Amino acid sequence: MKLLSQNRVFDGQLMRYQHESTSTKTPMNFSIYLPKSSESKPSPVLYWLSGLTCTDENFVQKAGAFKYASELGIALVCPDTSPRGTDLVQEHEHWDFGSGAGFYVDATQEPWSQHYQMKTYVTDELVNLVEANFAVSQQKSIFGHSMGGHGALVLGIQNPESYQSISAFSPICHPIVSPWGQKAFSHYLGGDAETWANYDTTELILSKTVSLPILIDQGEQDEFLEGQLMPEKLIQAAEQKKLSLTYRLHPGYDHSYFFIASFIEDHIRFHARYLLDNQ
Amino acid sequence: MKLLSQNRVFDGQLMRYQHESTSTKTPMNFSIYLPKSSESKPSPVLYWLSGLTCTDENFVQKAGAFKYASELGIALVCPDTSPRGTDLVQEHEHWDFGSGAGFYVDATQEPWSQHYQMKTYVTDELVNLVEANFAVSQQKSIFGHSMGGHGALVLGIQNPESYQSISAFSPICHPIVSPWGQKAFSHYLGGDAETWANYDTTELILSKTVSLPILIDQGEQDEFLEGQLMPEKLIQAAEQKKLSLTYRLHPGYDHSYFFIASFIEDHIRFHARYLLDNQ
Repeated sequence: MKLLSQNRVFDGQLMRYQHESTSTKTPMNFSIYLPKSSESKPSPVLYWLSGLTCTDENFVQKAGAFKYASELGIALVCPDTSPRGTDLVQEHEHWDFGSGAGFYVDATQEPWSQHYQMKTYVTDELVNLVEANFAVSQQKSIFGHSMGGHGALVLGIQNPESYQSISAFSPICHPIVSPWGQKAFSHYLGGDAETWANYDTTELILSKTVSLPILIDQGEQDEFLEGQLMPEKLIQAAEQKKLSLTYRLHPGYDHSYFFIASFIEDHIRFHARYLLDNQ
Repeated sequence: MKLLSQNRVFDGQLMRYQHESTSTKTPMNFSIYLPKSSESKPSPVLYWLSGLTCTDENFVQKAGAFKYASELGIALVCPDTSPRGTDLVQEHEHWDFGSGAGFYVDATQEPWSQHYQMKTYVTDELVNLVEANFAVSQQKSIFGHSMGGHGALVLGIQNPESYQSISAFSPICHPIVSPWGQKAFSHYLGGDAETWANYDTTELILSKTVSLPILIDQGEQDEFLEGQLMPEKLIQAAEQKKLSLTYRLHPGYDHSYFFIASFIEDHIRFHARYLLDNQ
């Protein structure tokens, strides 16, 4: 691992690293925040998955999360949203597909399957790397925004033994019927829509027993609410399966990091209840 | 005024505007945050001055200030750091001079004097514009970072009747002897170093009676501490004049917005003591 930068924030250390990923066969960047308390006691880890066009840096610069991670003694890990440094056909021509838009799936279709193994990277390789190299415990939770909210819900529901809790801001709730999801999945996963359902939160809720606590926040003025995010599909599925989850619709808020910053404290305290013994 | 964007943040409204400035004879952008409480009671205003290379947007995206402005009922106004849209000789070739580096002076030298009237813009034109168009009171304080910390200290000390309090992160404390200051002042103010002293906090403390409360935070690992910022000169001047101010040196912190975010709550609560009746 190569240290790219290091900053003190709220008494803890924010570090940005690059490493050679075996999953993506590319260099991958990630950011990790270690609260000061990790010097004396291993911290549980909260993984943040970012949205379309983001890197590992948007959240650390804009979300205002460190105050609460510091106070509660929780580490934050922020991976990038796709492999970088490759030059596949049309990889860099679309903001909602290819680089910056990995959708947290393991691609099965050429040429994407060579590198776009973001599910394995996030749930397996990065977790092992973090646990081997930093003062963290094996307690983990996962959250994210938009495409990353989709990623957090899907990866959390698929791996309930790995995570304690899931939360999402403005997630893509039903990607198999949303234009963003259809575009990405058709390239990464191919024409067999059966394989898509494993990466669709609404479908997963209908087909699996979901045991993890879930918090979802959504802005009512979000410009992508009806056309892309479709939380009503997820809510209907949860009601049908009598799944209890917390869904909050906030008047006036949009899809931006200003919305995330306004409610980030709630999300970190939500995860702290499941990550920490004494909450 | 043209509204460029609007976002709900912490229950209040963040708005970005462009207007034709009579001071700079250019379009100028600024951001303003109005807490929800301004709907029922005019808010006092805290002006933020940014550092080299910044626009009006860095602070609003990275500082994490809105939580406290919302809680305390204080409006935040963030001007740009220079005129934009002009193309003077070498204006855009240096990151520490010209565009993005107005140093909050009224330039006296051609061609800069045509547009670089940032002192008048910040202390006069923008204040009048804000007071005429938004639900704010005439109570004002001023703060900033680096070049903007210099600006806040200089403009606050020069105009004690206009502001209630001053604070700064990592300010350029003695620009007439720092390379950044010398480069900017020689172009904007010309060769007569007498005129420079009016824009140098250390010199102003030595020559004036400073009445406003001042808070300064500085990171000990700041890469510009010794070569550019020189807070020890300001501290010496304050001791010589028996001026009481709060100066805090924070081990491990650098010059970045991560440092600002870590202590922004302290700064807003500091100003609230002087801006609000009930604090």
